[in-house]
Amino acid sequence: MRIRDDIHPRACLIPGTSITLAVSMTEPPSTTTLGLPRPPAQRSAVPAFIVMDVISAAARREAAGADVIHMEVGQPGTGAPKIVREAVKRLIDTDTLGYSEGLGRPALRERIARYYKDLHGVTVGPERVIVTTGSSAAFVLAFLALFDAGDRVILPSPGYPCYRHILSALGVESLIVETGPEQRWMPTPDQIDRTVLAQRRNIPKGKRTAADVERVGQVGVAGMLVASPSNPTGTMLEPHRLEALVQTCRNWRMWFISDEIYHGLTYTMPAATALAYGDDVIVINSFSKYYSMTGWRIGWMVVPPGLVRTIERLAQNLYICAPAIAQAAALAAFDANDELQANCAVYRANRDLLLAELPKAGLTEIVPADGAFYLYVDVSRFTDDARAFTQLMLEETGIAATPGVDFDDARGARFVRFSYSGKTESMAEAARRLAGWSRLQPKS
Amino acid sequence: MRIRDDIHPRACLIPGTSITLAVSMTEPPSTTTLGLPRPPAQRSAVPAFIVMDVISAAARREAAGADVIHMEVGQPGTGAPKIVREAVKRLIDTDTLGYSEGLGRPALRERIARYYKDLHGVTVGPERVIVTTGSSAAFVLAFLALFDAGDRVILPSPGYPCYRHILSALGVESLIVETGPEQRWMPTPDQIDRTVLAQRRNIPKGKRTAADVERVGQVGVAGMLVASPSNPTGTMLEPHRLEALVQTCRNWRMWFISDEIYHGLTYTMPAATALAYGDDVIVINSFSKYYSMTGWRIGWMVVPPGLVRTIERLAQNLYICAPAIAQAAALAAFDANDELQANCAVYRANRDLLLAELPKAGLTEIVPADGAFYLYVDVSRFTDDARAFTQLMLEETGIAATPGVDFDDARGARFVRFSYSGKTESMAEAARRLAGWSRLQPKS
Repeated sequence: MRIRDDIHPRACLIPGTSITLAVSMTEPPSTTTLGLPRPPAQRSAVPAFIVMDVISAAARREAAGADVIHMEVGQPGTGAPKIVREAVKRLIDTDTLGYSEGLGRPALRERIARYYKDLHGVTVGPERVIVTTGSSAAFVLAFLALFDAGDRVILPSPGYPCYRHILSALGVESLIVETGPEQRWMPTPDQIDRTVLAQRRNIPKGKRTAADVERVGQVGVAGMLVASPSNPTGTMLEPHRLEALVQTCRNWRMWFISDEIYHGLTYTMPAATALAYGDDVIVINSFSKYYSMTGWRIGWMVVPPGLVRTIERLAQNLYICAPAIAQAAALAAFDANDELQANCAVYRANRDLLLAELPKAGLTEIVPADGAFYLYVDVSRFTDDARAFTQLMLEETGIAATPGVDFDDARGARFVRFSYSGKTESMAEAARRLAGWSRLQPKS
Repeated sequence: MRIRDDIHPRACLIPGTSITLAVSMTEPPSTTTLGLPRPPAQRSAVPAFIVMDVISAAARREAAGADVIHMEVGQPGTGAPKIVREAVKRLIDTDTLGYSEGLGRPALRERIARYYKDLHGVTVGPERVIVTTGSSAAFVLAFLALFDAGDRVILPSPGYPCYRHILSALGVESLIVETGPEQRWMPTPDQIDRTVLAQRRNIPKGKRTAADVERVGQVGVAGMLVASPSNPTGTMLEPHRLEALVQTCRNWRMWFISDEIYHGLTYTMPAATALAYGDDVIVINSFSKYYSMTGWRIGWMVVPPGLVRTIERLAQNLYICAPAIAQAAALAAFDANDELQANCAVYRANRDLLLAELPKAGLTEIVPADGAFYLYVDVSRFTDDARAFTQLMLEETGIAATPGVDFDDARGARFVRFSYSGKTESMAEAARRLAGWSRLQPKS
């Protein structure tokens, strides 16, 4: 047997384009193999999800007595809606809460299908809805179902870091497409076309076998993923741009994955679902954000009919099923719109407050905040090391925020993500603290 | 780019041994790619977890009005203990239940560490305990942390099918070691030695690079996994045999993974933990079985100190964290021993009843039932197609059971797994129905 050490993602430049193929390897495999029978697997060398480390650092400071304002974590400050909690209390003594079907409880799948009809006017058969253990599980299932080791997938940057880390652990290479303010921090069809063409040119002619061509169609890119509203930028794709990306992927016989986890949290335009533009897309969503149920670990995906059984088999084996109590809770969450809309009103007030106050503190370079509960702020006037900058901010102001390096390897050192999902009075206090912070002076 | 289609597990025979290398591919990739932009990934072609399909078939019959006795499903008929449910009702209004640390809530990690001290007299630092989304997540995390695509891992057969299906999806090959009654259906050190040596011989000399030797030590096997008590057989490793397997793996510089999910459910001997025999093992456990909390999706793993950060990074990215409500519930479960011991007494009564009654119905060939809540019954006197046999049993007697093919590709067609985790009166009724079932006549 030849040991394969050649299927791991490596960084490389794609000639003739501005596109970089990069999988960050900021944390190498542990060399502390003392007491281990052998080294960990090479593919385990994925970077940390830095925000989780920031959360731990903030918790340590809090435990040491500091008054920390949490703007680091991408979750509502609120718990599950009252209707959900009451439903759980009622059912917990009457429902055994054993395993559900691998695809999820039928009533929940039907309710999710109805959500698309009610909210978007799009008909989705409940058999295409798969309940997952948070959107995290949906990504793992989608990536295993759609991509083989060695495949390449387009990801916009900045973006949610776990996409590329999960892909890396699964042996799939990320093709990073950098976005910028002129395109509302979202990829364009033209960027996709150029990336695909560069990949095709990149396959040496002599190495192209008939099987290659059959396997990948005519191109070396297997799919792309986009999130609108985006984490960390909060920016959105206008509906016609979302449709154009779906069509671009269809043209190239690529999978289109739409991360719609921040739907419901929008301030400048309505969010379109990719399901409006065809049955051949994969849509991923969750009860974590709008429904305020992060720790319950419950989400869903909608997939083409021809993929349901593939994903069912993977889900049975890798997850058995999503948590039963969370599935029951999620069903009740659809009746909690009054409370959830009130939560949204708080986010909107927080957003307005920060957009007014942060510039007074010197933080003037803020990405358009269309949705989610994030402000992505360019801090390059003050630092070229956002990680050190956020550490100082935590120490000197008690404000925890996430350095952009979690979301953008190449440019993230110039950005900080502030989450405004907490209480409005905390946001006001954060603005006051930042206004008095001496480091918000342009670097000399 | 060369498309890699050569890293997928394939079935092969290992010359000079009785060992087969087989990854079942009973369900090929969907050919219904109509409407899909491209075919699903080849690695998605894992078989179904058949018991999940049996559960669905039983549910359909029940919905159609049949009186079904559920002996197919590997879960307690009881819900979470009352103490757990009361704890959840108390905290649900006071705890936001957001994301926890990726490794789990500290209080739960400490309590699990104490469990090893209390029950086994083994000291385990809480920093080595990782809370996972059921044992399912622990397997995925362990396999990604320990094994690269192309690695080979020894699995005893019969065994829990998801081990080999998850490994297959992750590009890892399963080396199936067949066990039999003379060895209590558990692998022996001698079998491990022979498998490892066969693999070493199997690497053509010319293909052995220096990197190969460094990477895999001197052998082509990266690890092994064993479960005691076992699913589906319920048999156990005597402590000295468990210790011998740990030592064998250490000798070969292989990972040893001990699935201890059925600990607490033992009837003939106490269960030893692999942690008693070294810090270099990986132990996986869960609150699903003894603690009667299957649908909560909460489990844990204990790993060597040098692996904690590796698994933390993977967990942050693939899962974020285990469900917060289940983590809080699990902490309370350690105080529920009275109720849980009462559950065990029911299993013991069910086991005794079936061991007395099934032989009268003609089912005389029953594997020693040391633990868990399974009887693995040789039905070869009646059929050579256990899948058809269990379908007939469901239709004609209303008893749902799982065909052995879920657990043993090669010999499973001769076995049926009965779960006795239900009510004792249901078990008695099942015995009555089987005693009157005409198919329990030896095949002519």
